[in-house]
Amino acid sequence: MNKLLIVGTVAFDAIETPFGKTDKILGGAATYIGLSASFFNLQSAIVSVVGDDFPQEHLDLLTSKNIDISGIEIVKGGKTFFWSGLYHNDLNSRDTLVTELNVLADFQPKVPQNFKDSDVVMLGNLHPLVQSSVLDQLEKKPKLVVLDTMNFWMDCALPELLDVIKRVDVITINDEEARQLSGEYSLVKAAAKIQDMGPKYVVIKKGEHGALIFHNREVFFAPALPLEDVFDPTGAGDTFAGGFSGFIAQSENISFNNMKNAVIYGSNLASFCVEKFGTERMETLSKAEVAIRLQQFKSLTQFDIEI
Amino acid sequence: MNKLLIVGTVAFDAIETPFGKTDKILGGAATYIGLSASFFNLQSAIVSVVGDDFPQEHLDLLTSKNIDISGIEIVKGGKTFFWSGLYHNDLNSRDTLVTELNVLADFQPKVPQNFKDSDVVMLGNLHPLVQSSVLDQLEKKPKLVVLDTMNFWMDCALPELLDVIKRVDVITINDEEARQLSGEYSLVKAAAKIQDMGPKYVVIKKGEHGALIFHNREVFFAPALPLEDVFDPTGAGDTFAGGFSGFIAQSENISFNNMKNAVIYGSNLASFCVEKFGTERMETLSKAEVAIRLQQFKSLTQFDIEI
Repeated sequence: MNKLLIVGTVAFDAIETPFGKTDKILGGAATYIGLSASFFNLQSAIVSVVGDDFPQEHLDLLTSKNIDISGIEIVKGGKTFFWSGLYHNDLNSRDTLVTELNVLADFQPKVPQNFKDSDVVMLGNLHPLVQSSVLDQLEKKPKLVVLDTMNFWMDCALPELLDVIKRVDVITINDEEARQLSGEYSLVKAAAKIQDMGPKYVVIKKGEHGALIFHNREVFFAPALPLEDVFDPTGAGDTFAGGFSGFIAQSENISFNNMKNAVIYGSNLASFCVEKFGTERMETLSKAEVAIRLQQFKSLTQFDIEI
Repeated sequence: MNKLLIVGTVAFDAIETPFGKTDKILGGAATYIGLSASFFNLQSAIVSVVGDDFPQEHLDLLTSKNIDISGIEIVKGGKTFFWSGLYHNDLNSRDTLVTELNVLADFQPKVPQNFKDSDVVMLGNLHPLVQSSVLDQLEKKPKLVVLDTMNFWMDCALPELLDVIKRVDVITINDEEARQLSGEYSLVKAAAKIQDMGPKYVVIKKGEHGALIFHNREVFFAPALPLEDVFDPTGAGDTFAGGFSGFIAQSENISFNNMKNAVIYGSNLASFCVEKFGTERMETLSKAEVAIRLQQFKSLTQFDIEI
């Protein structure tokens, strides 16, 4: 089985949407990536850090999904990273209410020995120096390195971010971040400029408006599935990244045509994530449900015009 | 050849975008619909009204595209409908600077006798009573009636709008208008409610984010083509409607599968419209360019996942 190495936060989230609010629940980029990638046939491991306030049941959940958690450091007397956000009525914008870095502030990632030869590495949103440190520890060049990041690092750590961007094959960011990083409004121009920074593949996530993947002059688009109700968008981007990197890791095929499939799987899995609060939907999701939804994506997008 | 009857404005537009501004140029919903539908093999006619300030060269342009203009009334001493708009930096929002109804204020549409048996009727955005009056004049039930409208009529003439909506097969509106008309934020729920109002097919236009068509529990999505530069969005929605109705009229097939193709053709033609100011790009567009772009739409959306 191929190996997928995941780095990112494992955290507590408190979420408020127009449909309700949660107490501190399981969250974090690596959590969502790991749960999403667990739908594929692969070996995965998470590199992260939590405090000793982090419940064993959350770690057990990850283990139950066949995720290796030996790279999740538990800091004695430390407190787990906590984020709290409030979504507005359209669910497209949110205010961050609380960010407590806690144990994340001094995080030194340690890649487990048996994942230093991973086939695919998924660098979830974290400080770019942490992302670089993970790449430094690898003993074999991965087939594919995927990086997710956000505007916060463009504002606060741009040189370090540009350094790690140079070292990856695929970058996944949202449309506003692509514009900020490139200084171009047109996403076609933005993707071209970002390719010049290093990544041969640029994935631009547009939330409810789907996702684009650019490679040289080629482009492919995966829509978001139109849903009756979106409950909570938290983690949708990470779930997309987990579906993308998990599918690539399973299939061992890094052609652009196969990346199209990976983007579809990313959208597929993300469409479930938003149906309930937090990780709830992903915890109970079955492979059969994912297969049925793949048929819905086909009906949604496939046409047959004879010219 | 099948007949397509088009009703809508033929007008003067003055447009300002971040890329420049125009004097009074050729515009109007029926103009864009007619130019777009002229790429298909069919007989088309426009029902509209202009003043005697309207240049013969604009009428000659329509005639050169094989559009029957005998239903365009020229009012002696009257002034042509004039609209002026200013687009903001993102081109997604605009301010209307001037709306002079002029001859449109007393417009009584007259359907040419040889188009009273049209196969497809495209009711472009106009007062719903004008749209109804066109349907009243038909002597044979068309295979398909398509209606485009806008929020203005929902605000000012809702009962009349609901009356004409009852009588059509397909409605095309944008996402915000679908929400306003239905009172539902979710586009899936909005489309279901609008189907209950009459139209069996609901097309929701999302501008740069593509278009959805809903029918019963089915849904299909056509993306907008990602472009390096968008110059002027004026007329894109009408060009989409012209491509949709023109393709259906040519193909004589009103199955949902063929409507998927029609939505792709609508997006295809609209992607050209926005490349230059006003109707400029549509005037010189060739069938070969449309065929090449269809291949781009296929690359953009078609995938082949084996399960």
